[in-house]
Order: sequence, then C-alpha cells, then structure tokens
Amino acid sequence: VRPNYLGEHFIIELFDCDQMVLNSIPKLEAMMLEAARLAKATVVSKAFHQFSPYGISGTIVIQESHFNIHTWPEYGFAAIDLFTCGTRLNAESAKDFLIEKCNAQSFDLSKIKRGILNKNV
Amino acid sequence: VRPNYLGEHFIIELFDCDQMVLNSIPKLEAMMLEAARLAKATVVSKAFHQFSPYGISGTIVIQESHFNIHTWPEYGFAAIDLFTCGTRLNAESAKDFLIEKCNAQSFDLSKIKRGILNKNV
Repeated sequence: VRPNYLGEHFIIELFDCDQMVLNSIPKLEAMMLEAARLAKATVVSKAFHQFSPYGISGTIVIQESHFNIHTWPEYGFAAIDLFTCGTRLNAESAKDFLIEKCNAQSFDLSKIKRGILNKNV
Repeated sequence: VRPNYLGEHFIIELFDCDQMVLNSIPKLEAMMLEAARLAKATVVSKAFHQFSPYGISGTIVIQESHFNIHTWPEYGFAAIDLFTCGTRLNAESAKDFLIEKCNAQSFDLSKIKRGILNKNV
C-alpha cells in the first residue's frame, strides 16, 4: 500500500551531549555519514562548517532527502533533522546511533509526515 | 531579553505549485538565495541536485543555520525548512516570498522552537 505522504521527518533535540563530539567536524562528519549508511540512504553530497568560536553545521544530502545537524557545544545541545523519502529507509537506526554517539543524556523526538496529499479526499 | 531557545524552525508545505518552478534548478537556486537575502541571512554554501525523472533537493547553508527545499513537481508539492538562529533574522519575509514564487495555491506552516534549554527551571 502506498502511503499518502511523500516524506518522513524526524526532528531530534539532543541535550547534555559530549561537547568534544559536538565541536569536532571530523567526528560529526563521520557520525552523520555512518548514520546515513545505517539508514540505508545514498549520500549525494555533504557540507560541514565550523563557526566561531563554537558550533558546527552539517548537511548530508541523500538521494532520499537530507540529514542535518547543528551543534551548540557550549550548551551541550545538538539539533538534528532526518528527512527521508520512501519506505525503504530506516531512520530509526540512524536516530538511535546518533543519540548514542553524542552521548546525549536526554532527547526529544518528533516525527512528522511531509507532503500529505489529497488531504480533502 | 534573551530567548530561552537557540533556533526557530519554519516547516512549510506548499501545495499546487507551479511545476515549472519546482523542476528547475536555476529557478529554485535563485529563489532560495533571494529568500536568504530577504531573511538577512549570510550564505555559506549551497548544494542543489536534480533527481531522475523529477524532483530537486536544495540546501543553502547559512551562517545562522540552513534553508532546505525538496520538490515533487509531479505532485506540485514542495517541502521547505527554514531553520534560523538569533533574533536578527527575518524568516517571515523569506516564507512569504517562497510561497509567492512557487505560486502555491495552499500551504501549511508550523513554527517550532529548537534547543529549548532549562526546560525544568
């Protein structure tokens, strides 16, 4: 059965994370690429940027949409978005892996459907 | 007064858009860059990809987080995320501009706060 929506979006808030992870581009890039692999996503491109004095933004464009992370090491906080299309992907595995890798002491997760078509049918 | 959250995230669903816009990288790229300018954001990098046979994914990394778009021209649908940090930015202007440029006949907008700290205080 084809779902009546086009994408699924995990909005993840990670609190009290390992600050060394959150302020390291090599660590975050490796982590996000591994998360994409675990989700069975196909990586198209990536862009990571270090901000001054703290904080990193990273995007992994995947064939099936994108994964984003923004970190605030000074607050031990990371905001992650996993936007996937298609039923083949496993965003749950990616989410679990990221929470563990960041050593988040608590997290919030919202799952929203994107592109709900024929709402009025 | 400093807000108790780190970022604001506009989740925008655009329905019944101009399909010619949604399947044109030059149009979408120019549109997203103009949206960033209207929001007073500083563009750091961008990545746009055409998928086969239809659909485009685009990310604009800005100094103050990111703007994303994914399009499904065959459904006239676009999913847009505007994630901004700081109180200086004007995501409202960007949002209004994007709705107009895509000629969306209807839209949904959710605004969520990212990085709400000291939740238990």
